[in-house]
Amino acid sequence: MKATRKVRVGDVTFGGSTLVVIAGPCAVESREQLELAAASVKASGAHLLRGGAHKPRTSPRTFQGLGSEGVDLLAEAGRRHGLPIVSEVMDSAQLAQMAERVDLLQVGARNMQNFSLLKELSRIRRPVLLKRGLAATVDEWLHAADYLLDGGNENVILCERGIRTFGGETRFTLDLAAVAYVRSRCDLPVVVDPSHATGLRELVTPMALAAAAAGADGLMVEVHPHPEQALCDGPQALTPVGFEQLMQRLQPVALAVGRSVSFTGARAVPVPAILEAR
Amino acid sequence: MKATRKVRVGDVTFGGSTLVVIAGPCAVESREQLELAAASVKASGAHLLRGGAHKPRTSPRTFQGLGSEGVDLLAEAGRRHGLPIVSEVMDSAQLAQMAERVDLLQVGARNMQNFSLLKELSRIRRPVLLKRGLAATVDEWLHAADYLLDGGNENVILCERGIRTFGGETRFTLDLAAVAYVRSRCDLPVVVDPSHATGLRELVTPMALAAAAAGADGLMVEVHPHPEQALCDGPQALTPVGFEQLMQRLQPVALAVGRSVSFTGARAVPVPAILEAR
Amino acid sequence: MKATRKVRVGDVTFGGSTLVVIAGPCAVESREQLELAAASVKASGAHLLRGGAHKPRTSPRTFQGLGSEGVDLLAEAGRRHGLPIVSEVMDSAQLAQMAERVDLLQVGARNMQNFSLLKELSRIRRPVLLKRGLAATVDEWLHAADYLLDGGNENVILCERGIRTFGGETRFTLDLAAVAYVRSRCDLPVVVDPSHATGLRELVTPMALAAAAAGADGLMVEVHPHPEQALCDGPQALTPVGFEQLMQRLQPVALAVGRSVSFTGARAVPVPAILEAR
Amino acid sequence: MKATRKVRVGDVTFGGSTLVVIAGPCAVESREQLELAAASVKASGAHLLRGGAHKPRTSPRTFQGLGSEGVDLLAEAGRRHGLPIVSEVMDSAQLAQMAERVDLLQVGARNMQNFSLLKELSRIRRPVLLKRGLAATVDEWLHAADYLLDGGNENVILCERGIRTFGGETRFTLDLAAVAYVRSRCDLPVVVDPSHATGLRELVTPMALAAAAAGADGLMVEVHPHPEQALCDGPQALTPVGFEQLMQRLQPVALAVGRSVSFTGARAVPVPAILEAR
Repeated sequence: MKATRKVRVGDVTFGGSTLVVIAGPCAVESREQLELAAASVKASGAHLLRGGAHKPRTSPRTFQGLGSEGVDLLAEAGRRHGLPIVSEVMDSAQLAQMAERVDLLQVGARNMQNFSLLKELSRIRRPVLLKRGLAATVDEWLHAADYLLDGGNENVILCERGIRTFGGETRFTLDLAAVAYVRSRCDLPVVVDPSHATGLRELVTPMALAAAAAGADGLMVEVHPHPEQALCDGPQALTPVGFEQLMQRLQPVALAVGRSVSFTGARAVPVPAILEAR
Repeated sequence: MKATRKVRVGDVTFGGSTLVVIAGPCAVESREQLELAAASVKASGAHLLRGGAHKPRTSPRTFQGLGSEGVDLLAEAGRRHGLPIVSEVMDSAQLAQMAERVDLLQVGARNMQNFSLLKELSRIRRPVLLKRGLAATVDEWLHAADYLLDGGNENVILCERGIRTFGGETRFTLDLAAVAYVRSRCDLPVVVDPSHATGLRELVTPMALAAAAAGADGLMVEVHPHPEQALCDGPQALTPVGFEQLMQRLQPVALAVGRSVSFTGARAVPVPAILEAR
Repeated sequence: MKATRKVRVGDVTFGGSTLVVIAGPCAVESREQLELAAASVKASGAHLLRGGAHKPRTSPRTFQGLGSEGVDLLAEAGRRHGLPIVSEVMDSAQLAQMAERVDLLQVGARNMQNFSLLKELSRIRRPVLLKRGLAATVDEWLHAADYLLDGGNENVILCERGIRTFGGETRFTLDLAAVAYVRSRCDLPVVVDPSHATGLRELVTPMALAAAAAGADGLMVEVHPHPEQALCDGPQALTPVGFEQLMQRLQPVALAVGRSVSFTGARAVPVPAILEAR
Repeated sequence: MKATRKVRVGDVTFGGSTLVVIAGPCAVESREQLELAAASVKASGAHLLRGGAHKPRTSPRTFQGLGSEGVDLLAEAGRRHGLPIVSEVMDSAQLAQMAERVDLLQVGARNMQNFSLLKELSRIRRPVLLKRGLAATVDEWLHAADYLLDGGNENVILCERGIRTFGGETRFTLDLAAVAYVRSRCDLPVVVDPSHATGLRELVTPMALAAAAAGADGLMVEVHPHPEQALCDGPQALTPVGFEQLMQRLQPVALAVGRSVSFTGARAVPVPAILEAR
């Protein structure tokens, strides 16, 4: 077990004693949607705001994201609420603009082996969140990270988001053993995305708790002010109330494995109170 | 979320507030091995003793278990240490003898859809631990449980033990979302086996903690006094010391999700001490 | 590449120059259904008649087969049309009765690692058709065959019937490379079941042709006189007309890889005519 | 079953009565290697020459291809032997140069959902060979093709190259049912790559024959003058002699399903002779 590398994104540190929570909508849809999402996730203690502007959608006939305008809206909401922002970059044409405004650049599962993109990202300083490909072995995932590291970008955070299996009940199969396995093989921080992994709102909180217990350094959770109106992946989005409950239940589990969820929001709950509430 | 059905095995209750821990060697090998295993798992707080007497081995040319004699040894060790015993039954010819002596009859993953065996087990009163088939969807697993329930045996406990996927780093892929999914669909208690799921000793404890956080009602863990000499599955067995450490780390996680690990052994550690030790 | 072992079932030889075709309904439903099925598959050139009497069904609340009466009906139809019969045996209680009347005993995919059953089958002389488990590697499949061979039954035929993967369009994924792989590793004849593998009637013929080209020693195809009324697996059953077309198209492919489909039926078509018809 | 769309690449037509064969080394390594490969595959009847110049390699520490120089060498070899060329394009920076010189632009499995790349390819006229992602369902594959078609590029050819499953004996699992399924759902030609799918030289020919029988419109086969010296994927490459044998065995199977392999090379064998040779 190697000591975990610390990767700073704005004033947040991945790989330290704090369990870092990234939250926000799957896709940036409008200023209003984002304001509601950002305000609520901040209040519940999230550390970073996520939102997709360039969306890698299976079919070209579905909503493709707001693009550059979406990045602007996300950056604005992040500033307003003091949250560093996370968003996916899909190609080099988007890179220059995004690298300026996005604090943590996400490489999506479908691009994990887009080696041209990885090589370009290796040459910048922005931290990268590298999602595991949906059929990638852990070794292939670590080799993809090598493209970033070897090229000179040492700010790499891994993200387990579920692998594709025969199972039909959940969208993907969350592979939490991969978190522990990565931990034993390299020093990169690992974040878990229980929302994409399960595709089902009611499974997000149990899997978030399980990820924390398994030793994850952070979580990435989809939160939408009105999941039933979401333009993408509504069934897996938590409501603001659901996210608040997740954070309440996460606190004691994080503590139990020697982590804290350093609540930065107004509603931050002191530990004893939460323990009493159990 | 339905209230969980309580299934009693000896004086142990699955599906209640206690996180039940089953521990012991993969296979019964000798009286000495079993005595060492039983004494140590009891001391660390395990509630039941496991051990395979009839082993379903991939190849006929490998150790097939001690058979009926193994069942005797297991029953003797269980009695000596006050631990109910768990062992796998592979066919109806073994059933009569085993039903008398084994407290919890295990149906192995490879027999999950051995419908003839399930029908026979449905007609007895002994509780059954039904392992998930390695390529079974959750729905198929619940249908297999229906064979037991419909036939009249209501004492059914499910066991998630990893599914077969493309991944090569771990033996199987532990599907903890299935635990939460089962919880939302039926009232049967669910136990998790992190030993077979991962096949790697160093991943057993993180996955045990994750299973507890995900809401599992129990754990089944392989413990061998000398894993390097084990006749089967040595690389995934914990040593007695490793198991003691698992139990120590499990306690606060169980508490964090509203469960206790009701230590019954001599070394039972009061909660505050463990919390301090973190 | 080893020479293939010849396994005789009645007057039919698996592993020789003839591509052997097994056909019939998924389940024996009635004398009428079976008579229509048997007459039509015989007329189109099938060599053996299949039909399930003891059915391994996912749920206990669906049709479980006619049991012993179904075996009688199948045996009767086989005699009437001069076709050896193939049927699945699920447990040792059925074995004595079935071994007397069924020419080729099938072990289903879900029982491939029912080692108790395999051991019993190893002690009889009846040929066994061992289906590949839906998550079994080829090596595990060959080890399962070892249970039969080591125990003394040398009349083993393998059957590839599709493996479980993430794919959703077909029921399973037919793994034809496994046929060629088995061919290079052992001398057992291999049969392919394109009906269960695909679950879709329109894919059965292309996959039957592909199996023949890949070097399979035989095919097992579901044929039902009225698929829309079938009690089980109707969507994958060919009609008698569909099966006749399959046999017509199979002939030249078999010849192209050095096999024949030795038509035994009344409508047997001389090769040149078929070639002209292309 | 829709009529297949005809896609012309140079003077070769995919989707017509000819079974089109693409052959050549995995990677362009040198002028000598390519000359030997091109001469031999041409002599055996291949229609197009393949060779990777920009290689998507799992690890950044392995051979990454000769890049632009490799494209030049491939184009030169193609011209010399009258073979249109096929090569992979990995990003938009390579696109302009490659679109000028490469007759059929390949999108690799790892880039099947690189939607930015697909959008760029949709705006040019060059035909595109779209490989199936290693964990892509057929529907996702067809949606990826929609990115090309909707954007205006109608010259799309699909390529099945094996999916990732639990199987360990072969590199991937060749999903030939997908060929027949695609055939029933859309009009795009489908090519099969048995080399990457199996990863084992001895399985390439049986799977090539099976693909032809399943209705594939073409094959893509790796051939290397000295596989044991190949810089990448040597174990799956055929020798020139092995490829010649494949073509000999392919001929009668293609004829059996109503196709021809229109030998263009000097050694083209008249059909009757081949039939006699069987």
